[in-house]
Amino acid sequence: MKQYEHPPAEAFELTCILHALSDPYRLSIVQKLSVLQPQPCAPLQGDRPKSSVSHHFSVLRKAGLVRTVVVGVTHMNSLRNAELEARFPGLLDAILDAAARCVELSANS
Amino acid sequence: MKQYEHPPAEAFELTCILHALSDPYRLSIVQKLSVLQPQPCAPLQGDRPKSSVSHHFSVLRKAGLVRTVVVGVTHMNSLRNAELEARFPGLLDAILDAAARCVELSANS
Repeated sequence: MKQYEHPPAEAFELTCILHALSDPYRLSIVQKLSVLQPQPCAPLQGDRPKSSVSHHFSVLRKAGLVRTVVVGVTHMNSLRNAELEARFPGLLDAILDAAARCVELSANS
Repeated sequence: MKQYEHPPAEAFELTCILHALSDPYRLSIVQKLSVLQPQPCAPLQGDRPKSSVSHHFSVLRKAGLVRTVVVGVTHMNSLRNAELEARFPGLLDAILDAAARCVELSANS
């Protein structure tokens, strides 16, 4: 069964993580996984074409944000939050807090 | 005297901020300004061509990270850290902490 490659935590790069999270769709995937994980791709896909979703998940995996495990025909995705917290303490929480603030602000405007 | 345009704090967008900081050179400018500000462009330029530096400063200004004030023939740059902190509390500090950690880790390896 094909499995995906994931960088080890010591190879995580800050600029790659920031680039991965600078796209609104990829940021929304990380937000959804921070609330409920693991999740298969389908509920995270929205109305996007599969090729676009594959690309975005690849960027998230290469940055070290997401781990994808193939279980039968399902790809289960989870955040690597413990490893991210160990490598860059407080970073993911600060970005998720800021993302939640954007939703709050747009909901109030 | 030509002055630059800067977005108001309420228009700051998280994904634009993350994109601006996902480039190592732009991140290094923000790190340098976090230690000493305001600073003219020259000490922040390194050996890069002026056109490249202008582009990177433009990205930083549009994201709301940097304010550039023209004083005579000098462009003085400063971080908009108070406004960033008010809009996204803890975000810039967490990213700067993570960036400092990268330097520490590479110095120790």
